[in-house]
Amino acid sequence: MRLPSRVKFQELLASERAAYPVSVHDPISARIAHSLGHEVGIMGGSLVSAVLLAAPDVTLITLTELAEHVLRTTRSAPMSLIVDADHGYGNAVNCMRTVQELEAAGAAAMTLEDTVLPRPFRQGKGQELISADEMVSKLRAAVSARRDPEFALVGRTSALQVCGEEEAMERIRRYAATGVDALMVLGVKDYAHMKRLHQHAGLPLLIGYVPPACDDLEKLAQCGVRIALRGHFSFFVALQSLYETMEHLKAGLSPDELKPKMASAAVRKLIFRDDEYERWQAEYLS
Amino acid sequence: MRLPSRVKFQELLASERAAYPVSVHDPISARIAHSLGHEVGIMGGSLVSAVLLAAPDVTLITLTELAEHVLRTTRSAPMSLIVDADHGYGNAVNCMRTVQELEAAGAAAMTLEDTVLPRPFRQGKGQELISADEMVSKLRAAVSARRDPEFALVGRTSALQVCGEEEAMERIRRYAATGVDALMVLGVKDYAHMKRLHQHAGLPLLIGYVPPACDDLEKLAQCGVRIALRGHFSFFVALQSLYETMEHLKAGLSPDELKPKMASAAVRKLIFRDDEYERWQAEYLS
Amino acid sequence: MRLPSRVKFQELLASERAAYPVSVHDPISARIAHSLGHEVGIMGGSLVSAVLLAAPDVTLITLTELAEHVLRTTRSAPMSLIVDADHGYGNAVNCMRTVQELEAAGAAAMTLEDTVLPRPFRQGKGQELISADEMVSKLRAAVSARRDPEFALVGRTSALQVCGEEEAMERIRRYAATGVDALMVLGVKDYAHMKRLHQHAGLPLLIGYVPPACDDLEKLAQCGVRIALRGHFSFFVALQSLYETMEHLKAGLSPDELKPKMASAAVRKLIFRDDEYERWQAEYLS
Amino acid sequence: MRLPSRVKFQELLASERAAYPVSVHDPISARIAHSLGHEVGIMGGSLVSAVLLAAPDVTLITLTELAEHVLRTTRSAPMSLIVDADHGYGNAVNCMRTVQELEAAGAAAMTLEDTVLPRPFRQGKGQELISADEMVSKLRAAVSARRDPEFALVGRTSALQVCGEEEAMERIRRYAATGVDALMVLGVKDYAHMKRLHQHAGLPLLIGYVPPACDDLEKLAQCGVRIALRGHFSFFVALQSLYETMEHLKAGLSPDELKPKMASAAVRKLIFRDDEYERWQAEYLS
Repeated sequence: MRLPSRVKFQELLASERAAYPVSVHDPISARIAHSLGHEVGIMGGSLVSAVLLAAPDVTLITLTELAEHVLRTTRSAPMSLIVDADHGYGNAVNCMRTVQELEAAGAAAMTLEDTVLPRPFRQGKGQELISADEMVSKLRAAVSARRDPEFALVGRTSALQVCGEEEAMERIRRYAATGVDALMVLGVKDYAHMKRLHQHAGLPLLIGYVPPACDDLEKLAQCGVRIALRGHFSFFVALQSLYETMEHLKAGLSPDELKPKMASAAVRKLIFRDDEYERWQAEYLS
Repeated sequence: MRLPSRVKFQELLASERAAYPVSVHDPISARIAHSLGHEVGIMGGSLVSAVLLAAPDVTLITLTELAEHVLRTTRSAPMSLIVDADHGYGNAVNCMRTVQELEAAGAAAMTLEDTVLPRPFRQGKGQELISADEMVSKLRAAVSARRDPEFALVGRTSALQVCGEEEAMERIRRYAATGVDALMVLGVKDYAHMKRLHQHAGLPLLIGYVPPACDDLEKLAQCGVRIALRGHFSFFVALQSLYETMEHLKAGLSPDELKPKMASAAVRKLIFRDDEYERWQAEYLS
Repeated sequence: MRLPSRVKFQELLASERAAYPVSVHDPISARIAHSLGHEVGIMGGSLVSAVLLAAPDVTLITLTELAEHVLRTTRSAPMSLIVDADHGYGNAVNCMRTVQELEAAGAAAMTLEDTVLPRPFRQGKGQELISADEMVSKLRAAVSARRDPEFALVGRTSALQVCGEEEAMERIRRYAATGVDALMVLGVKDYAHMKRLHQHAGLPLLIGYVPPACDDLEKLAQCGVRIALRGHFSFFVALQSLYETMEHLKAGLSPDELKPKMASAAVRKLIFRDDEYERWQAEYLS
Repeated sequence: MRLPSRVKFQELLASERAAYPVSVHDPISARIAHSLGHEVGIMGGSLVSAVLLAAPDVTLITLTELAEHVLRTTRSAPMSLIVDADHGYGNAVNCMRTVQELEAAGAAAMTLEDTVLPRPFRQGKGQELISADEMVSKLRAAVSARRDPEFALVGRTSALQVCGEEEAMERIRRYAATGVDALMVLGVKDYAHMKRLHQHAGLPLLIGYVPPACDDLEKLAQCGVRIALRGHFSFFVALQSLYETMEHLKAGLSPDELKPKMASAAVRKLIFRDDEYERWQAEYLS
């Protein structure tokens, strides 16, 4: 059974288009995003850590709790979900299990990155990368562990930020040769830079940050970019609302003033699919 | 090891005070609530269904996924959490497991209700209740399964709404005699009514809804009410924010306009305890 | 992506053959069964309750813990696994979720039964069945919730044992018309009986018990039986070994005497696939 | 609420006795062990990997799936369980979460070891250890994360096998000063060696292997040993039984021959506590 969310994501990678993915952090946000017509979502590791543990992004979550969260999320809405799988939760053999778990959880794509995680003892300033040899092995292991060829594997690299242009280009070339479907590159500078990286890699690009004055999707697409991340706006706006509301209540102010800000019955119905459940209840319980 | 969150909740039950609990639906909301000084939270089954499944409140969640969610939540913040355990997830023996699971998950209290759940095949209009005999057995089973005597068990009844005053009084009397710590009553009318119920039960009361013109905590306290639920404001305000933000992004509007609405770095730091993690990293990783 | 384990099970249903499924209770037993060439496994609810909770078969396990256990098991070995889903964990809408979960967990088939579960308050002697109308609705709901048409849904009935032949035949006829792939019937008497049931249902049969003198797979196949359960031998033999070994150790006897009874290095290697992991380590870690 | 299983384990550590722990790998084995009167169990990482993943011991399991397995196991029987927590699932901050999770799961004790895990890319022959500084930080972090002072933390070292006697003694001295309750030492040679290690550490010892001719519990106790591991006999005997039974069935031999080897009704009743459930059903369901 082909997963439409994967088919569509592969079509996007193969297309000449670029898209801003919406930041999705849980089943409800996926449901809303999908209801509104967003086609691609990205689930960042930092938000999963926030949602599951109320912790900062310090590689505390486990692969299995991530996978359960992804399963809940993909079941909630059939949109294409790119899951941030950090470093693959260990060595290359752990990466193989990571691929298995996230594939079974219904993700459309997952990223594997070349940073050393979790933070090593007595790390110097700034991030450290694993060797290019090790990253190549991890990506090859990941490719070999995939069962659904439409589940997209994305190599992610911070090499431009950590190693400089030359080594980054070498890493990109080698990662691209492992059989992954796309590369996610952090630290791109401008359209020309992206175009060069894309031609060098020979693969579709995801970019982790949109450089200033590069927010034209058509131009991004022409440079080989298919996915351009812009940040986790919806999560942090909702977080602020939650905070302010609880602050309001703690201050002893009336709940009545909050009512106009609450999701209306119509919005709730849309999000939680009341109609669908009522239809099922009518059909199968009466 | 005594759990401070349970000690405090038992103190509240034994006090002459009443409190509005804050509605808590996940680890982040618990963290915020606790940071702001809210002392008691309540986790409604409807919100757990929303958060975990993006589904309406139709008894779809399982006991174990509830328990995992409660564990994450109580670990996130040491506030007193009252967990809505619906009907105890089955018969009286299932109730025993429910007590075990939610006690292990760190809840301060749990409610068990007398409605027939999940919705039975060809239910008539309105809710149905299990027999008073069955509910008494479920509460007795729950009491027998508790290991920490400070974990509060609350019998919850919809009898006033379903069976009329007389049978409700009889049920309340019998439920109160099972050894539970408190009763949660739906359908109270006014202060006098609450006072009568309280004297009849001889137990602290939780009320599931604050009747109009009964929102004076001192007067509620004098009627034996210790916990007065007012609704899930913060969840639904945050939900609306999430919805509007995604709608904004879908409409192609600029993320820049969203920035002022996002949680500030200071608020994020407070919520996700960045300082604490930085301190640990400084202490143990360097 | 079609699941070979489902394709093969559907082929078996469509064939003229009958098979004894092996009783599988966890990832290790599935791995062993598959290594030895068993083609179909059945995971009984009673064994899942034993393995996860060390409890008897009293409907204590939750749908999600069953689903996680099934996922581990199907990942351990690509054999066809028939999962006992009891009553579908609630009403017809719960059955829909049950189908979703077990389908996502990789089962080849699941059974849904018409007994009232968990045991109701003040049940009379013997089992009770839900009404035929309700069971038909549950099966129709299950069929509608399936996404992979090769995931086999099996209606299971105890009607022969509880309601007598006439009502049983009526139930079987109605269950068969819901769109399920097969029926599992408890209480069959002999070949002629099975043949009559099969012709009446117009569907492949699973039988929950092999009547004396009916253990000829060819004859069973001619009567429409495709799967004939024989009991959980391997689990209970291993259980006895575990018990005796711990008893031996408790008695202070020497571990040396146990050594000849332990799985040899060769058997362990086979079961835990050491070679495969060593190959991966050689390929991706060196 | 003090956990009796922790109280007893602390008493054992403070005593002049030594015990052979029974190897416990899941809820059933804990139930049997406890029923037979075994006082302390140890749950090895290798067996958890086998039970949950049917995989060899290559650090594939996640902290959360270990914790869930431990919770099921400690709930099944109130015996003292020592859990092998490998390297603490990451850096020192991950160790803090590991302590939290296993404490919440009801373990009586956990071990943290100084080997580099999972296996690093291009590891040389043999194991590698993290630096003594890092291990000291991990143990200090673990001690700081503990909430129940009776939850025993055990530092485990392979230094004798990897670094030679001198560095091992230095590590043992430093680990012992972190506030852990005991040390588990691999590679002890004889009674004199153990006694020297014990006096050097000033803490109770666990040994991971009983040297030949050192199997006298009294003498071990005099050398400061409180727990002496002997291997996973019961698991591997039961595994062999499982294998042989499935082989027998695959060969088409009769199940009848297996019946004498199966756990009797009486043994099953004992293990699954049928009497207790029947009593509860009688008390609360009728």
